[in-house]
Amino acid sequence: MSHEQPDIVYLDHAAATPLADDVLEAMRPYLADQFFNPSSPYLPAFRVRQAYEQARADLAHSIGAKPAEVVITAGATESINIAFASTRGHTVATAIEHASVLACAQARDHTLVGVNGNGLVDPADVAAALRPDTQLVSIGLANNELGTIQPLRAISAVVAQEKQRRLLAGDATPLYLHTDASQCAGLADVNVSTLGVDLLTLNAAKAYGPKQVGLLWASSRVRLAPVLFGGGQERGVRSGTENVAGAVGFACALQQAVATRKDEARRLADLRDGLQRRLCQTFDQAVVSGHKRHRLPSYLHISFPGLDAERLVYLLEERGVLVGTGAACAANKATRSHVLEAIGLPDDVADGSLRLTLGRLSTEENTRRAADAIIEVVQAEYDRVGAR
Amino acid sequence: MSHEQPDIVYLDHAAATPLADDVLEAMRPYLADQFFNPSSPYLPAFRVRQAYEQARADLAHSIGAKPAEVVITAGATESINIAFASTRGHTVATAIEHASVLACAQARDHTLVGVNGNGLVDPADVAAALRPDTQLVSIGLANNELGTIQPLRAISAVVAQEKQRRLLAGDATPLYLHTDASQCAGLADVNVSTLGVDLLTLNAAKAYGPKQVGLLWASSRVRLAPVLFGGGQERGVRSGTENVAGAVGFACALQQAVATRKDEARRLADLRDGLQRRLCQTFDQAVVSGHKRHRLPSYLHISFPGLDAERLVYLLEERGVLVGTGAACAANKATRSHVLEAIGLPDDVADGSLRLTLGRLSTEENTRRAADAIIEVVQAEYDRVGAR
Repeated sequence: MSHEQPDIVYLDHAAATPLADDVLEAMRPYLADQFFNPSSPYLPAFRVRQAYEQARADLAHSIGAKPAEVVITAGATESINIAFASTRGHTVATAIEHASVLACAQARDHTLVGVNGNGLVDPADVAAALRPDTQLVSIGLANNELGTIQPLRAISAVVAQEKQRRLLAGDATPLYLHTDASQCAGLADVNVSTLGVDLLTLNAAKAYGPKQVGLLWASSRVRLAPVLFGGGQERGVRSGTENVAGAVGFACALQQAVATRKDEARRLADLRDGLQRRLCQTFDQAVVSGHKRHRLPSYLHISFPGLDAERLVYLLEERGVLVGTGAACAANKATRSHVLEAIGLPDDVADGSLRLTLGRLSTEENTRRAADAIIEVVQAEYDRVGAR
Repeated sequence: MSHEQPDIVYLDHAAATPLADDVLEAMRPYLADQFFNPSSPYLPAFRVRQAYEQARADLAHSIGAKPAEVVITAGATESINIAFASTRGHTVATAIEHASVLACAQARDHTLVGVNGNGLVDPADVAAALRPDTQLVSIGLANNELGTIQPLRAISAVVAQEKQRRLLAGDATPLYLHTDASQCAGLADVNVSTLGVDLLTLNAAKAYGPKQVGLLWASSRVRLAPVLFGGGQERGVRSGTENVAGAVGFACALQQAVATRKDEARRLADLRDGLQRRLCQTFDQAVVSGHKRHRLPSYLHISFPGLDAERLVYLLEERGVLVGTGAACAANKATRSHVLEAIGLPDDVADGSLRLTLGRLSTEENTRRAADAIIEVVQAEYDRVGAR
């Protein structure tokens, strides 16, 4: 992060975040001297095991959980897959979940609940989608394209009510609430008690930590089942030699994210709001998607009807401004975003959409520079296509 | 690796290898500036994608394969699980496979083939275990406790014969040969054509590369199936944001391992043979397990009947010598090794077993020092228990 290119304005923090310097520093011993297999029988290996377990404890502490409830994984996709593998029966999710949740849900009996124009799900719709055989509700804490934060507490209450009904009816069918909070560390509250969930997925790579590291938190009520079979690490839930450097880096990154959240969220919201104001004042036709208030402070999803987002990305890149158009993993598939479809954005609006996501690399100066570039490019494109 | 503790003699390279300096150097840009999501739509992200694809090409080249046939995974356990998920029906494996292969095999209809006292499987036994519904034969190239190298070519011929039989009988049931070669990079030939396999697993962490990175090579005849559902990366086989730094590091490590294999294998075999000679000359009762010739040059599995290996590990550690007792992932489970059971080692011999594995940290000087320490400790223990 110390090496950021000075000329580039990075507005795609939701796709990837740079590794924080002190995170890399924390990882370094485990990329050098402390390379031992934590399962080896001698003291230096035991020390590595201790560092790994300390990382687990720190991760747990950062989300208000117990260490024994945290499984360290190879990323959010794996966490989500374990959450799904640990439950059976019917699943309820929203239509705007990340590809990983959608793919897991679509592999079994499921109901996708719609969202409103802001990308917000109505807890009453979740309640209506619950069936007697529903065992999992999986709803992302914040949508990864719009940044809309879902009313998890209210959804948790709906789930609790159904649990209560089953209890009274003597029905032992379990019901769990999972949230993929991958986009949220450092930007929204990811405390598991506050959220009222049973399972929570987090991703280090979205929080200035290393790539290919994640966690799955599961309350002790949930019996986790493995996706991979093997050496039985992570108490049998996640086999494979432990990624000590990754876990230590993730723990450091998450601690920082949680510690700086309130200040950083305020800072980013100010920058974001300024950017949004300038763009909307300049372009009457611009459409901002995502909830006005219940939105990650780093997110600005803005559409320029009639323009081609891919051209905008290219033209902005020529000016040193890097922006996204949607989820990075879907972006190169040349398909229209299922999220924008779900909120009912007309095609000509959706096709001109940029996902601008601010973060630690954002400053007042470079956000202003980005605004200048976006205005210049969008204006030139509207002039070119003659739509303004 | 530059920081190795000068006083410690590390004889557990099979459990973990230190990250090579130039491997970390190769990874560094992707741990810093080049943090972009390879699926993002701008040029700096595309360059990261190119580096990732170059790593895949280099990995493929190192094993004599085509880039499109290589899936980059989060480690050997995941590779093995994908290999199994991609095949159905009856499976044949040996009784001495790594926990991961055993766990996958045991989750379905399978036959475990025995091995002889050297840990060698007889291809005729594999042939006898094949059934009309067998679709996968999974046999580790070298056993991870003994270092015994299996006759993969001969087993490949057995598999080819059964394929031929099915072809002539008009039977379309597929049959694939998978090998877990995790212990072998840099120590044995891992060229897929030479081995005659259909699927091959490798692990970066055992070859001076980063932890939690592996590969699964599959010939184009094999249709791979995912274990994890998600964003569809790695052509749908392995979803999850790509670990670019890990892949680049693995490619660098594997290239080095392959390039230096012959010289390093000779060097290690000399050191190992010297160590073995000294220990066996000093202790008549010492039992060396593993095949005399068909053995990884880095391996010395030696048992001291009547002694307790865990005490030996502890006493050796006091003298700065780090050794293993078996597979690291099984070592802390306080169960007797399934490998030593399979080769028919009596319990009192098995319980006094050390797995000494040499590697890049081994020198003539420190291997001699290790031999001195082992002789001292084993002698003291025999004196103490009065068995000599």
